[in-house]
Amino acid sequence: MKNETICAIATATGGAIGIIRISGDHSLEILSRIFTKDLTQASGNTIHYGHIHDSENNIIDEVLVSVFRAPHSYTGEESAEISCHGSQYIMKKVLELLIQSGCRMANPGEYTQRAFLNGKMDLSQAEAVADLIASTNKATHQMAMSQLRGHFSSELVQLREQLLEMTSLLELELDFSDHEDLEFADRSQLDKIAKTIDKRITSLANSFETGQALKQGIPVAIIGKTNVGKSTLLNRLLKEDRAIVSDIHGTTRDTIEDTIEIHGITFRFMDTAGIRQTTDQVEKIGIDRTFSAIDKARIILWIIDQEPSTKEFNDILHRTENKKLIIVQNKIDKADFIPLTTVNFPLIAISAKQGANMDQLEQAIYQAADIPTLSDTDIIVTSSRHYAALQQAHEVIMRIINGIETQLPADLLSEDLHQVLDILSDITGGQITTNEVLGNIFKNFCVGK
Amino acid sequence: MKNETICAIATATGGAIGIIRISGDHSLEILSRIFTKDLTQASGNTIHYGHIHDSENNIIDEVLVSVFRAPHSYTGEESAEISCHGSQYIMKKVLELLIQSGCRMANPGEYTQRAFLNGKMDLSQAEAVADLIASTNKATHQMAMSQLRGHFSSELVQLREQLLEMTSLLELELDFSDHEDLEFADRSQLDKIAKTIDKRITSLANSFETGQALKQGIPVAIIGKTNVGKSTLLNRLLKEDRAIVSDIHGTTRDTIEDTIEIHGITFRFMDTAGIRQTTDQVEKIGIDRTFSAIDKARIILWIIDQEPSTKEFNDILHRTENKKLIIVQNKIDKADFIPLTTVNFPLIAISAKQGANMDQLEQAIYQAADIPTLSDTDIIVTSSRHYAALQQAHEVIMRIINGIETQLPADLLSEDLHQVLDILSDITGGQITTNEVLGNIFKNFCVGK
Repeated sequence: MKNETICAIATATGGAIGIIRISGDHSLEILSRIFTKDLTQASGNTIHYGHIHDSENNIIDEVLVSVFRAPHSYTGEESAEISCHGSQYIMKKVLELLIQSGCRMANPGEYTQRAFLNGKMDLSQAEAVADLIASTNKATHQMAMSQLRGHFSSELVQLREQLLEMTSLLELELDFSDHEDLEFADRSQLDKIAKTIDKRITSLANSFETGQALKQGIPVAIIGKTNVGKSTLLNRLLKEDRAIVSDIHGTTRDTIEDTIEIHGITFRFMDTAGIRQTTDQVEKIGIDRTFSAIDKARIILWIIDQEPSTKEFNDILHRTENKKLIIVQNKIDKADFIPLTTVNFPLIAISAKQGANMDQLEQAIYQAADIPTLSDTDIIVTSSRHYAALQQAHEVIMRIINGIETQLPADLLSEDLHQVLDILSDITGGQITTNEVLGNIFKNFCVGK
Repeated sequence: MKNETICAIATATGGAIGIIRISGDHSLEILSRIFTKDLTQASGNTIHYGHIHDSENNIIDEVLVSVFRAPHSYTGEESAEISCHGSQYIMKKVLELLIQSGCRMANPGEYTQRAFLNGKMDLSQAEAVADLIASTNKATHQMAMSQLRGHFSSELVQLREQLLEMTSLLELELDFSDHEDLEFADRSQLDKIAKTIDKRITSLANSFETGQALKQGIPVAIIGKTNVGKSTLLNRLLKEDRAIVSDIHGTTRDTIEDTIEIHGITFRFMDTAGIRQTTDQVEKIGIDRTFSAIDKARIILWIIDQEPSTKEFNDILHRTENKKLIIVQNKIDKADFIPLTTVNFPLIAISAKQGANMDQLEQAIYQAADIPTLSDTDIIVTSSRHYAALQQAHEVIMRIINGIETQLPADLLSEDLHQVLDILSDITGGQITTNEVLGNIFKNFCVGK
């Protein structure tokens, strides 16, 4: 499989330029069959102007071909990229000609998979490529970039070194296993190392929740009685954000209408029905939905337009335990507005209708999200595969710590240590070579990457 | 304006790779401010791996930069292309950094406009670039490619030479204008040249109709009584085509659901209501729509499921005069099917329901379109600007031919000849330098081209 030459369209249709990628031993030979020039002797990292033609010498396009020679290419293989006019017809036609000339269509993520198999990057870095392409804001971009640049991988290398230190201490002991009850390795020192390792593993695993929230958007529920202005507020939030976003770039955000971005972090709003006492069956369903939105949310915006009764207040507090609650007093534009005060919760007085104090509200939402300021080198676990591995590693380490305390023999401890090493190693792809596992990892990539 | 360095995203969002183009005197200087390496001394047509970073040295992406040195670039200027991961966030960010570092956003078509202004292509070739990017099938691709490769331009050069020959004959005469009634130039020879020129100009102008039909799809109306199977037939045609198209490429054609492609030519189907005698006002509107569809169509598919009466037949013939009529006898799958015969019109017996004889029908539609088989060098005028110029040139030439016959003085003939030369010259951009005219031509380009 590795030696087949693959091709794919690597750009979306609808642009001025389209890129077609080719990779594999015969890339330049195959490409030369449909290109003006013979590229088989071309140097790496050079660009060549010419025509792509079909078998009857009809010119399909005037193109630029970039040549990459192994191992100095993305995949580590002989590669080329054709930059053609971004017409769907032309791109399809060029692809067809490449396939007729000996390439096969690339599978999703196959370029990156080959880069991994050829040692250009480890598996966690390869996975970061998909996250990087999918990144839509500063936070998701930073997480993916940190992982792609190998910060997570180096962290794993450090953990591995500590684990190997423990292992060597224990295995020295095993070499002298004839001498019963002899303990070379200081158990309290082993215990200390194990706990340090577990602390770091647990902290990495815990970052997964933040990673998920950043990737999917932090869930926010807007709740409150009917007619307090929930929809007006939501529209106001979405609209203000959209105005900012469409500023320079002329991009539309129609597909993600219920999310806004504050300081580079995405917040996802969940639609809820008004809360009020009811026996009406239909409205009951709406209220159930509100409660379910509260359950899923991390932040609750409780909209009020007058002072709530003690009972209401207690109800809400009870419902929103363990959530970040922000009380939003709407309609400050009304003549009869009476400002409230609270002691324990942030309270923002706004006018959703007139857009007053929206900055303050956004700032409060951002603070409630409680996302640590990420630097370029911070490691946030974003892949559920990595999270599962870290959890598994944590469980085995806990067994080791327990084993040290209950004076388990060195050979059993050593066995567990090797298991942790294997689990961590699989994150960066150490043992993983089966197509099934790789297939699962790369199936969500786009074709052409 | 020419020396400003411009930048734009040249690929659609949603792909694995994104391309950002930079062009202008300071391209490499500006790019070097946000790139790992200093590119100001880089050779043309070389590729450089590195990072794009922001002013705080945060890494935005790992990219490949292609360097092009003037005049060996698309625009003829110092240029570069950044190939980054296809994330919308990254592409926007890189664009922002370029703008902060001294570029400005390119206008639609500005790269091609600069290529024209720098003499890399003439105006008709520049216009072909937009057509090429928009091309969706073999025919539109071929027309745009022929124009881009300068076949139309060379044709105009030839016409120009013939016109100049006429002019020099006349102007020799003018030099001796003291000698009244002296005619150096043989009027019958001038007449012959003028008629040859006009024949070619008229033929080019006439190709515009074909060009339009190919660009927009050849209009086809499906008419017939209610319940003869018009919708079933349309669905069948669309479905069969879609199955072919989605074959290898996995592309969807949802946006152009009412067009199909036969042998590389697009046919556009117009929805029509059933024809029957009616006094009902609502149905009347539907029938008006049928008649209007017939008017706009080039090909009429008249669907019948039993022998039409002579009156019906005559009605349809009357309505479809000057159109290509294909009679389609549907429902051959029915037990009581009686095959018809006609003498003067193609008649195809089909089953829209079961898809029988659809190939035959498609072949008949293709033949009725009567599109000449285009070769790579055929010239089809597709731009209404060019068409208008050719028509104008034709009018002036007719005036010249008339003038020769009515023995108009040489100086008046010469004046008209210069006008024709100017009109034709403007097609390739000879006299056109005003921003207004160029702006009109390039405003429909995509940004990044």
